[in-house]
Amino acid sequence: MGTEFEHKLVVVGDEWRDAVIETSALSQAYLSTTPGMTIRVRVVDDAHAFLTIKGKQVGIGRPEYEYEIPVDDARALLAMITEGFPITKTRYALGDPWPGWIVDEFAGANAGLVVAELEVPTEETPWEVPVWAGENVTDDFRYTNAELFGRPFSQWGAG
Amino acid sequence: MGTEFEHKLVVVGDEWRDAVIETSALSQAYLSTTPGMTIRVRVVDDAHAFLTIKGKQVGIGRPEYEYEIPVDDARALLAMITEGFPITKTRYALGDPWPGWIVDEFAGANAGLVVAELEVPTEETPWEVPVWAGENVTDDFRYTNAELFGRPFSQWGAG
Repeated sequence: MGTEFEHKLVVVGDEWRDAVIETSALSQAYLSTTPGMTIRVRVVDDAHAFLTIKGKQVGIGRPEYEYEIPVDDARALLAMITEGFPITKTRYALGDPWPGWIVDEFAGANAGLVVAELEVPTEETPWEVPVWAGENVTDDFRYTNAELFGRPFSQWGAG
Repeated sequence: MGTEFEHKLVVVGDEWRDAVIETSALSQAYLSTTPGMTIRVRVVDDAHAFLTIKGKQVGIGRPEYEYEIPVDDARALLAMITEGFPITKTRYALGDPWPGWIVDEFAGANAGLVVAELEVPTEETPWEVPVWAGENVTDDFRYTNAELFGRPFSQWGAG
């Protein structure tokens, strides 16, 4: 597999909702969240499941290896995980006028958090900040799902 | 996937060599070796590669999930691992009069160690101790490959 380059923004406006072209329900947790590597199990719409290994981030790029696995295996693996806060979120894919953007609206321990991501082919690819965007958190590790798994949004106020 | 039950013995004799019916070269390392879960990347004969997740051992049984992955992915994943001692070993499958037994002859940092395993359908399945067998190390965690990865056989004398 390749390397992904993505920009990540906090979502503050609602204008993006009219541009949604696809919705999916994601449940995921982590088998490992060391600084050098994260290993994720994800179930999508109760129909597909994936095991994804991400290596160390370099700039906005990060090596990623993803394998589809049986949903039953994924459920058993998720059940083995005894630490952390399983992440549930609704993922929206946007079309015109924001094609390529995906918006993640978190539930559970991360309720209240809405984040948008744009994957681009190279770090230099030009891109525009949407009207509904707040802070750019591409480099803020707290907003990574692996970090939210260990320290969810609802606990950020707890200092 | 299922649960594997296996007996593990140190090999002291050489009689098993005449019963070898298949030989393969294994290279492997671990993405995670927490007590509750190990995640292994293995390359077999430079031709096949597997990602294997094993859960917590209960008696001699242990849940195991294995997925074949591209050899190139496996090599990239192995290159990401910066800690531990990659394990290389030759695996021999035995036939008559010891069908079902596999013998692992370690190289590299574990050179000198030879271990045999017999996988059985249930914990109660009857089995016989071969003439070439030494100590039964089924319950000795030092002989797990995940542990050998962190503390190889060549270092055991170092106290």
